[in-house]
Order: sequence, then C-alpha cells, then structure tokens
Amino acid sequence: MPRDPEKNKASKPNLSHIDEAGKAQMVDITNKPASHRRATASAQLTVAPETLHAIQDNRLAKGDVIATARLAGIMGAKKTADLIPLCHPLPLSSVHVVIDLEPPNRIRILATAQTFASTGVEMEALTAANIAALTIYDMTKAIDRAIEIGPVRLEHKQGGRRGVWQRDDSC
Amino acid sequence: MPRDPEKNKASKPNLSHIDEAGKAQMVDITNKPASHRRATASAQLTVAPETLHAIQDNRLAKGDVIATARLAGIMGAKKTADLIPLCHPLPLSSVHVVIDLEPPNRIRILATAQTFASTGVEMEALTAANIAALTIYDMTKAIDRAIEIGPVRLEHKQGGRRGVWQRDDSC
Amino acid sequence: MPRDPEKNKASKPNLSHIDEAGKAQMVDITNKPASHRRATASAQLTVAPETLHAIQDNRLAKGDVIATARLAGIMGAKKTADLIPLCHPLPLSSVHVVIDLEPPNRIRILATAQTFASTGVEMEALTAANIAALTIYDMTKAIDRAIEIGPVRLEHKQGGRRGVWQRDDSC
Amino acid sequence: MPRDPEKNKASKPNLSHIDEAGKAQMVDITNKPASHRRATASAQLTVAPETLHAIQDNRLAKGDVIATARLAGIMGAKKTADLIPLCHPLPLSSVHVVIDLEPPNRIRILATAQTFASTGVEMEALTAANIAALTIYDMTKAIDRAIEIGPVRLEHKQGGRRGVWQRDDSC
Amino acid sequence: MPRDPEKNKASKPNLSHIDEAGKAQMVDITNKPASHRRATASAQLTVAPETLHAIQDNRLAKGDVIATARLAGIMGAKKTADLIPLCHPLPLSSVHVVIDLEPPNRIRILATAQTFASTGVEMEALTAANIAALTIYDMTKAIDRAIEIGPVRLEHKQGGRRGVWQRDDSC
Amino acid sequence: MPRDPEKNKASKPNLSHIDEAGKAQMVDITNKPASHRRATASAQLTVAPETLHAIQDNRLAKGDVIATARLAGIMGAKKTADLIPLCHPLPLSSVHVVIDLEPPNRIRILATAQTFASTGVEMEALTAANIAALTIYDMTKAIDRAIEIGPVRLEHKQGGRRGVWQRDDSC
Repeated sequence: MPRDPEKNKASKPNLSHIDEAGKAQMVDITNKPASHRRATASAQLTVAPETLHAIQDNRLAKGDVIATARLAGIMGAKKTADLIPLCHPLPLSSVHVVIDLEPPNRIRILATAQTFASTGVEMEALTAANIAALTIYDMTKAIDRAIEIGPVRLEHKQGGRRGVWQRDDSC
Repeated sequence: MPRDPEKNKASKPNLSHIDEAGKAQMVDITNKPASHRRATASAQLTVAPETLHAIQDNRLAKGDVIATARLAGIMGAKKTADLIPLCHPLPLSSVHVVIDLEPPNRIRILATAQTFASTGVEMEALTAANIAALTIYDMTKAIDRAIEIGPVRLEHKQGGRRGVWQRDDSC
Repeated sequence: MPRDPEKNKASKPNLSHIDEAGKAQMVDITNKPASHRRATASAQLTVAPETLHAIQDNRLAKGDVIATARLAGIMGAKKTADLIPLCHPLPLSSVHVVIDLEPPNRIRILATAQTFASTGVEMEALTAANIAALTIYDMTKAIDRAIEIGPVRLEHKQGGRRGVWQRDDSC
Repeated sequence: MPRDPEKNKASKPNLSHIDEAGKAQMVDITNKPASHRRATASAQLTVAPETLHAIQDNRLAKGDVIATARLAGIMGAKKTADLIPLCHPLPLSSVHVVIDLEPPNRIRILATAQTFASTGVEMEALTAANIAALTIYDMTKAIDRAIEIGPVRLEHKQGGRRGVWQRDDSC
Repeated sequence: MPRDPEKNKASKPNLSHIDEAGKAQMVDITNKPASHRRATASAQLTVAPETLHAIQDNRLAKGDVIATARLAGIMGAKKTADLIPLCHPLPLSSVHVVIDLEPPNRIRILATAQTFASTGVEMEALTAANIAALTIYDMTKAIDRAIEIGPVRLEHKQGGRRGVWQRDDSC
Repeated sequence: MPRDPEKNKASKPNLSHIDEAGKAQMVDITNKPASHRRATASAQLTVAPETLHAIQDNRLAKGDVIATARLAGIMGAKKTADLIPLCHPLPLSSVHVVIDLEPPNRIRILATAQTFASTGVEMEALTAANIAALTIYDMTKAIDRAIEIGPVRLEHKQGGRRGVWQRDDSC
C-alpha cells in the first residue's frame, strides 16, 4: 500500500467529527463558503473467471448486470447522507459511474460526484462505488459467493479550502 | 486470493437475476419456504498507524468512532432492499456488528445478519459491513484520506435449500 | 372505457380506509390470514414517433432507457408503503416489469407483484408501472415534453378472500 | 392527442441522460446557473359515478380522501430524486396540489412545484400528481378496482435556459 | 408521576440492547415465536387557547390540521425502524391515530399499532404519536412557537412473552 | 406552563400551511431570501432512578445508550422533511445534540440545527430532540416501560424575517 506518510503527518491528528467532549457530532459547515467540489472514488471486485465471462456475455448482449450496478451506484450516492450518520445532505449536481470488466477476473468501478456546496463529496463518490460493487455481488452471487470487493478508495478530490488531493498511485 | 474453483464450476453459470430475455429482474421467491437464514460478512480497512492511534485513544475514552460505525452498519443493513435494486425486503431478526482495531494499521469489521424468510441475508451482512467501513472512513478522512477499504467479502452463510457455505480461508 | 357496472354495484359503497368518524385510517388486517397474492397493472405512454425511434435505436444498441425504467419500477414497488399513506408494508416476493415499444408512438408497461401476506399487492403493481412510466418521461423529456402517461390501471389480481378480479377489456 | 410536431422536431434528437457510450447517467448540471423554476403537471382519474359520489359525500363531510391524496402528492414530490434514478436532489421551495371532482366520473389533479435551482422541476410536479392519483386509487379500490389513471402530463414549465413551455391544449 | 416501583424492580436491571461487551446491538429475536402484538401510546400538546380555537375552527370547516397530523402519525409509524437505530423492521397490520382537541389548551393524541411478529410495537405506537404531535407543532408554529409537547408515553401493550402491561394512571 | 400571552396575541391568527380554501399546503418560500438560521429545541425524559443508574453505569463505562440516542437524533434531523408532511427539504449545515443525565430521574436533551436557507430549522431541532428521546426509550424500555417523554419544546430560534425568538423560561 503506497502511502505518503507526509500527507497524514500532523502533530495532533484531529478527528473532525468528535467534539470537545469526545462525542460524535456533525461538523458545523454553516460558515464555510460554497464552492465547486469534485471527488472520484474507485472500487474493484475480484471474481472467478467464469463469472466475468457470464457477466460479459450478458453485457455484450444486454448489458444489464453492469447497467443495474451503475444505476444502483448513482442512486446510492443520493442516499449518502441517509447512510453515513454524520454526512451533510448535499445537492449533488452530477454523479458519474463507469464500470469496466478487466479479464480474466477483475471488475473496476470509477465513480465521480460533483456539487456546489460547503463540504466535499468524497463520501458520495465512495458510496456510489461501493453500492455499485455490492450490486454486482448481488447479481452474481448465485454462481460465485467468493467474490471479493476491494480496494475501495478515494482517488482524487478537488475544491474547498484544502484544494486538490490526489492519490499517489491513483488508478 | 485462495478460491476453490470447484465451488464456482458450472457447465452453464446462471445469473439468477436475469430473466429469459436477458433483462434484470427480482428473483421470484413466492414459492420458496421460509427458513432460518444467517450470513456473516467481513470488511477491513487499512489506515495509517497514526489514524489507528487516534481512533484508539478516542475509543478507550469514549468509543464514539467505533460506536458510530457499528450503528451505521446496523442501520445500513435495514436499508439493503432500498440500496440493492433486486434485493427482496426482509424482516431482519438480528444484525450484529463487531469492529476490532488491529494495530498497527488494520480495522476489521464482522457483520452477521439473521432472518426467518424465503431468501438469504448475504446482502444484508455485506451492506452492514460496508456501511460501517464507509462510516469509519468518513470520521477519519480529515486526517487520512488514503484509507483503503477491502477486502469486503462473505465469510459464511447458512439456511435455505443450498445449506451452509463457508469461505475456505475464512477469517 | 368499458366498465362493468355490476362490479361496482353496492347498496352502500364503503370506503374501506375511512373509519366510522369519517377519518382516514389504515385498514386493520391483523386478523386476516396470509395467502399468496398477485396483481398485474399496466401503464402506457404516448410519445412522438421520433421519440420512440430514439429510444428504440438506443435500446437495440444498449437498452438503457428501458433498463433504467424497469429497475426504477422494481425499486418503486418496494417503496409503495412509503409513498401511499395508508398502504401496509409488505414483504414482496417478486416484482416483474416488462416494457414494450409499440411503434409508431406507444410504450406499454406491464408490472406484476407477488407476496404471501394478509393484503393484496395492487398498489405495488400500480406503483411499479407508474414509476417506470415517470422514468421514461424523465429520460426522454429533453426531446419530448408532451409525452402523455396513461391509462394506468389494474389488469388482474388474485388471492385473498375476494379471489380473482380480471379487467373486462384487459390488455 | 394534439401534439405540435414542431416542438419535437430535431435533426438529431438527443437523449440527455445517455452518455457518449450509450449508458444512462445523471446529467451534469454543475455549471448551470441556478434560477427560479416552476412546473405544473396534471393527472386525471376516471371512476364509476358511484365512486365519485362516495368520495364527494365524504369530502363534503370530512374531506379526507382528497386531503389524504393531496398530502401524499406533496410528500411524493419530496421523494422524486429517490424514485427517479437520474433526477437531481432539489430544494423544493413550494409544492401545491389541487384536486377537483368533476361529476359524473372524473377527478382532476393539478400539481405545481417550484424551486431555485440549476435544473427544472417537471419530474417533481409529475410525481406529485401521480402519487396523489395512486392514493385516490388506493382509498377507493375496495369499491372500484376498474379506475383508470391518465392522462398524466406536463402542462407548463418555466425557468432555465429554455424558458417557458406550455402544452398546446393545456387544461 | 405515579410509578409503580414494583414494575421496575429488578436485582440487576438489564439494558437489553447492550451486548456483553457493553456495545449497542439489535436484540436477537430469531428464535422468538411470532404472536399478535398491540401497543397504545399517547402524546399531549399544550397550546395557547387562541391556537386551539384556530385549529378548531379550521377543523370544523375542513379538518386539515388534524387530518394532516393523523396521516403523518400513520406514515411515521411505518418509518420506525428507519428512525430508531436498534428497532426491528416489522410488518405493521394496523396503525390507528385519534386526535382530540380538549379546550381550552390541550390536544391529545392516541396511537395504536398492531402486528403479528416476534417483537412488540411500542416504538411504532410512540413514533406515531410523536410525529403527529410534531406535525401539529409545524402547522401551528407560525402563531404559537411556545407549544409544548408532552407527556409522550406508553399506555398499554399486549402480546408476547411478558403479556399485558398497563400504565397505572392510563388516560 | 409559563407562557407569555403577548407572544401569541393576534387579532386573526393565521395557520400558515392552510391555503385560502382551507386545505393543507406547503408554504411557498420561493421568493424568500436565504439567510443563516438556527434553532434549539429541548426534550426531557422522566425515568425511574434505577433506569438512570443503569444508563449511567453503562455510560461511564461505554457510553453507548447516550451515544446511540445522540446519533439517532442527528440522523433524525436529516429526515425531517420526510416525516413532517409540509416541511421543506433543507441543506442542514449543522446538527448538534447534547444529552445530560440529571439524577435522580431526569434526562435532558438539547438539539441545535443550523442552515443557510429560506426557511427556519425549528422542526429539524425538534425532530432531533424527539428522535433522541424515543431512542432512549427504546433502549431502556425492557427495564422501564413507564418512562415519560416531555416537555419537548422550542427554546430559541434566530434568523429570517422575524429574527430572534427566545422562550421566556428557557432552560
């Protein structure tokens, strides 16, 4: 896992959702200016080669496993604030999900969310990628229960006070 | 990835959610008898050691990051049929989420769902584990955007016509 | 509209959701036995011929407008008790949505819902057909705002004390 | 169906939710300016005259069928982005639903939605009208399963780059 | 507050949602038999006399404040498992909400929920009463922000292993 | 109940959600300017002293009853527009919930919501306090069904045309 220790170096790392008394709270963004925000997250699935073939044959013909997962990802992004306790509700201006089959045994999901708001959309992008991955699992589990999801990770974000963040080994 | 090819071997793998005409549909479980079902899924996060320390210190004191993630997992399991397009709504009788910190840099989530119903609860267990993992990401991302979630996978299931399924290298 | 007046004849028609004092309430089904229930509803859209072509060309190639509407219908059926104030929550065992393009200007949706429960699934079938129709509108409105949805109607139901109901001029 | 073919004339009709590769996606509105938007949709129901009487008598006395449907329409509008896969979440500033009984056998619903946002509210108005219609069906189906919903259609919209759209034969 | 200390006497009171390690979890009801369950909860509001008049005049004429609150209570009951983190999803068979105006300054809400399930419906009854009360507040707050809600309490429950519970000073 | 009759005095009190024809409608806020809004609501529970001890012991050790209720309150605030029929959806910028145990038998909840929007957040603050209170009930009801919730009331609001409102006897 290529991590840059510099990025996380901080003399006193500060869990932003924990208030002075150590209790979980929503971060107050009342006074943060709105700006354009974008975040991209990725998720991978490792499947049996036969599973990839089965999806692929169907995809070439009808595309429905992949189409279903893509829609589930988009709809999942819109539910982020319902799912993640301390997330702010956000008026998403765009969610884009791309799913690629990479023979022999890999499926790669890339989800990008955008908004004009006072806080970022990392969680929306991650949720989209994750729900799309779970949906692929659901639709193929009858033939392959051993599928593994992961890594799921943030690839890129921009906007806001901290500006651009880019994963070192971004895919 | 230790996979047993025997498990997935099938002369014609059959994507159960795709109807004859290749279109995604909910599987019809109208005539399947109800039985007790249980499924356990796991999710891991790889974090920076400083991040684990920050969570741990807080956990010993207040436990809130982990408590929040556990609740988010439980609540997420109840939303599975809303999130995964072709999942059946299920009257969950139990959801249990355990989260362990494994220094220096690993967090491990184990989620078990149960029901008495005509279909299994793999997706509920996987959704619980996954939403718990996303919640940990959300609460620590201010100090560590590089966190990776994965593998997320099914560990065990039982109940229903196909009986027990156990991952070979189950954690 | 070919209606059979016999079907609706009743010396004192009784709005089942209105209690003695005339106030809207959920019907009490506590003492009704569970049984298999099935209902089929239909919805039509009348579109401009160019719109049908546009959908059709895409459908032949990728199928996504129709695939999206079908999924939206299935997911919508699962939300029926959230949307219709006095509907009971039901463990749907099957939702099946079929969408046909009928040139030059008609799209026909047929949605069937099933459950084993103490009350019927007419509303689930109607909701599925309706949300699928709205989704087609949403995806084509940029080229054809004049699309009309309708008729939306129940075609068939079975199960429960009253047994089978079949529309006289069912499609 | 009085349609103006001019309105839909386009040398290459463009399904806005389908991306270059033919896959369903949310339209990106990140760079569209916010403006006041308004849309009005209508829905009709055709019922048996006895059904209209039953609703009417109750309405004069207590108004609950109509009151329930009106609320269901308002609440349904707020769920539009949950129901329609590619709809953007919108901060609705107003939803107004009017329901008229038109003897002997017609019920007419008019729903108007407003917002200040980067995209229109046609789907919110249509969803409000549609959920109100389904709610009337639900509350009267015990005496009249043959009720037909439709036409459901957009009557008027204004705001945004394309300005006003008015149905030719608007009710 | 007339409490019967006997009822709560226990040598070691046991918070049922806290597992051995002290962590919040859903109670496991997998092996509990289903039975008929009923619970009734009450909520009161104390309003200014002018507020009661305003509601009353409207109620006599159109009934909408009360009708809206009653529906909100019914719909709220169906969302209980979404709102209360450790509640089980339940197939409610009945929700009944009655709202009485008691001049000069009291509004009384009585909500009864029923199901056939492995766990009780106290929370559904309490949630219905509570959401109805909040809805009355919402609709009257423009003229009376000082309204107080309370007491909200369980009045009666029956069904399940513990049988009947009745508040000593039940209203 | 210390109420200031001056506050509610109005020659013709006007229920803002009732339109000219006496029907419940969402208030139109299309033309109201957005501004910073804040509201604080409180809720109390009266419990048996043994119940307070049980929560307290657990709280000192693990904090989970209180942590669960606090999260439920925060998440409940985000669902306000889903629960309260005529509430506008709002982009909450902050929700803060504080829960204090006040021996021998009182639990006090204070919830503050903030937004930058065209309408206030009283209902969000009240919903947060109320759902937190219901969650405490749910987690302790196995040992104390007689718990009473109330009073639940608005303490303070600011922002918007009417400016600051402060309860006379605010806690």
